[in-house]
Amino acid sequence: MTHTYHPLGFTGSRIAQGYWRLAEWGMSDQELLSFIEQSLEAGITTVDHADIYGDYQCETLFGRALALKPSLRDKLQIISKCGILLPSQQRPEISSHRYDQSTGHIIQSVDQSLKNLNVDSLDMLLIHRPSPLMDPDHVSEAFEHLYTVGKVKHFGVSNFSAQQFDLLQSRIDMPLLVNQVELSPLELKHFKDGTLEHAQQHAVTPMAWSPFAGGDLFKLEGINPTLYQAMSDVAEAHQASFDQIALAWLMRHPSGIAPVLGSGKIERVLAAQQALTMTLSDHEWFAIWVASQGHPVP
Amino acid sequence: MTHTYHPLGFTGSRIAQGYWRLAEWGMSDQELLSFIEQSLEAGITTVDHADIYGDYQCETLFGRALALKPSLRDKLQIISKCGILLPSQQRPEISSHRYDQSTGHIIQSVDQSLKNLNVDSLDMLLIHRPSPLMDPDHVSEAFEHLYTVGKVKHFGVSNFSAQQFDLLQSRIDMPLLVNQVELSPLELKHFKDGTLEHAQQHAVTPMAWSPFAGGDLFKLEGINPTLYQAMSDVAEAHQASFDQIALAWLMRHPSGIAPVLGSGKIERVLAAQQALTMTLSDHEWFAIWVASQGHPVP
Amino acid sequence: MTHTYHPLGFTGSRIAQGYWRLAEWGMSDQELLSFIEQSLEAGITTVDHADIYGDYQCETLFGRALALKPSLRDKLQIISKCGILLPSQQRPEISSHRYDQSTGHIIQSVDQSLKNLNVDSLDMLLIHRPSPLMDPDHVSEAFEHLYTVGKVKHFGVSNFSAQQFDLLQSRIDMPLLVNQVELSPLELKHFKDGTLEHAQQHAVTPMAWSPFAGGDLFKLEGINPTLYQAMSDVAEAHQASFDQIALAWLMRHPSGIAPVLGSGKIERVLAAQQALTMTLSDHEWFAIWVASQGHPVP
Repeated sequence: MTHTYHPLGFTGSRIAQGYWRLAEWGMSDQELLSFIEQSLEAGITTVDHADIYGDYQCETLFGRALALKPSLRDKLQIISKCGILLPSQQRPEISSHRYDQSTGHIIQSVDQSLKNLNVDSLDMLLIHRPSPLMDPDHVSEAFEHLYTVGKVKHFGVSNFSAQQFDLLQSRIDMPLLVNQVELSPLELKHFKDGTLEHAQQHAVTPMAWSPFAGGDLFKLEGINPTLYQAMSDVAEAHQASFDQIALAWLMRHPSGIAPVLGSGKIERVLAAQQALTMTLSDHEWFAIWVASQGHPVP
Repeated sequence: MTHTYHPLGFTGSRIAQGYWRLAEWGMSDQELLSFIEQSLEAGITTVDHADIYGDYQCETLFGRALALKPSLRDKLQIISKCGILLPSQQRPEISSHRYDQSTGHIIQSVDQSLKNLNVDSLDMLLIHRPSPLMDPDHVSEAFEHLYTVGKVKHFGVSNFSAQQFDLLQSRIDMPLLVNQVELSPLELKHFKDGTLEHAQQHAVTPMAWSPFAGGDLFKLEGINPTLYQAMSDVAEAHQASFDQIALAWLMRHPSGIAPVLGSGKIERVLAAQQALTMTLSDHEWFAIWVASQGHPVP
Repeated sequence: MTHTYHPLGFTGSRIAQGYWRLAEWGMSDQELLSFIEQSLEAGITTVDHADIYGDYQCETLFGRALALKPSLRDKLQIISKCGILLPSQQRPEISSHRYDQSTGHIIQSVDQSLKNLNVDSLDMLLIHRPSPLMDPDHVSEAFEHLYTVGKVKHFGVSNFSAQQFDLLQSRIDMPLLVNQVELSPLELKHFKDGTLEHAQQHAVTPMAWSPFAGGDLFKLEGINPTLYQAMSDVAEAHQASFDQIALAWLMRHPSGIAPVLGSGKIERVLAAQQALTMTLSDHEWFAIWVASQGHPVP
């Protein structure tokens, strides 16, 4: 169940496993290794990290598990991110929550990620958020270096607007392959602000973070009863759970959205993979769209 | 009084006659034929339809009148639209108000429009509204087929943002000639959101639907007394009616707006045509603009 | 301390002296000459005018001072603007506040500016505000004429959105070099609406008007106490004044913002020039950004 993210490269799994809450899962290294292996067997080969996840600790936890069975590395496509600074006991030198997208910081952050993850290279590096101080020429310099020395194979961005994407791409010879943004049946903003049209036009894969709206999908009855009813109808027709329907709904979009999961429960991961075989009808897709936005299509 | 809509093709009349309310006019086929002939004599050769107008019935009514005098066909430029589904007794298979812009639906919808209208081809086909599920490659495939077999001569869109337009155009070799959007002295949104700048840049003709704001133009005194006063001043200076001034105001814009009329009263149509000879001064144009937006230009 | 505004031309000073309040300064011609000379000695060679400043009188006041020492002309880069009409006792023929960006008006306005300023040519001409009635072909015709006859050397715009810029640029062979917009620690709008990304991408220099928010920067304690505190901290660290910090903050942005000063007090001008030597740290820059927008970066 491999998925081509961009005509010029990067083959991963359509659904990625995200590890931003890994530090909360309370797994031993061995348990995490087992989770990774079971996810792999289910077909989820793409894993999503960031330097800052779990107060800068998730990459390290993942790397420790990977060290128990290094042969797994070549079965994974590892994505990580950089560009945000967070005050942390792990990083006493960081004085405030801000961004740093200087050439030096990007290179240094990747070196640290490689060390944490116990790997020689990242399959993809994303700039985590657009910084008002981003100098695209500096980012380009870092990307060229990291590519040339073999530390990063592909590049992308996260939370970028169409214009921010165009600016950065205009200074980089290599294509930016993905834009990871918040997308879910509860969060339609980027369906409506041109982000997805821009991604479609340029064959960029939108990755969806928080595809279940940070868990709000499972509290819908109180949050949006109309959407709850619409989701219930579709879920019943497909004999599926809400998270499966949310994933199928995202993946039905013609821009080729690749969702990022966040759960550490393998049964949830396995269930999610089944969404790949579910195809919502137009009627079902629009029922969820209309319920979410609260008014009919015009 | 012909008008070139795009440097690469389509010559129509600057003012188009819209038939979305035709089913409400209560005309016999012979009366409608007479209306079409009188409009033609006045110079309005472009007619605007959509599959869904009048609960899917306006095209058929028009086609019945045209069948009484088939020689009129070659004097008309017929525009129709597709891509919206509406629940209707005429279409029991449609379960909900949504969009369908699949290759199959577009082709099928045009076939039905041709049958309804009693014609062999459309001069222009528009995608009626941007669908979140629009796959531009599928639309392109439909357009290529319809062009190749001679069923549609030109293509365009309606209610598209600049980014939605760019996405679709990026997948279609033929130029999209028009973007039909709501524009009137009471509806300035698309004057301010980049739609008209985008159309101007790419030599796309903006067609204005609801140029009289669905009739609100004639109830201005209660809706916007300041705009009522501004319109009154300009109307008095030109010895003209409000609808004439609204049309002259739209056509004064450098993007080359082509308004679509909606009335079935031939005297209103004839009056509208006279707006082609009225040129508002800058002072008059801005008086209406400022009154409509409720604050001076900066 | 010269600054290249665009890879294809125009070398000015990074900080420009604006003369929109010149008529309020109450200077004799000799005093103004002295002010211009002192500014020049400090390295501010670029001066910013507009036809309408000071009820159409600032250019004339500046021209009278320049006439006292014509040799200064070649040391200055003179920017002026046109395209706005203001009712004025100086211009009895103008019946309303509106825009005029016709070929004839642009050429006539430049001729008047040259006469007022006592110079043979402008170094740069800006369209002052985007007009809904701007016909880019007419502006292009005016620009080509003014360039060909040697009356204007470079061209740009002011207060243009990215799409308005693209539209005009698409019709002009010469590059538009600048977009002068409102930018300050109190006015983040154009940092967030794509204007600066667009400028960066196309190597256009953003010039900042009202870099001190029309004086609100000096009343911050009452307007935005959080921003006041942030500015105070940075100002204290750099032993600098609020206006120096505001300028250093603007000039730290990677788009190469060129601020336009508005004060007629030479000590303020000299102080402002010192901002060129101040470099805010990322921590300081983001402290001001976060305080101004009222919430942390995401």
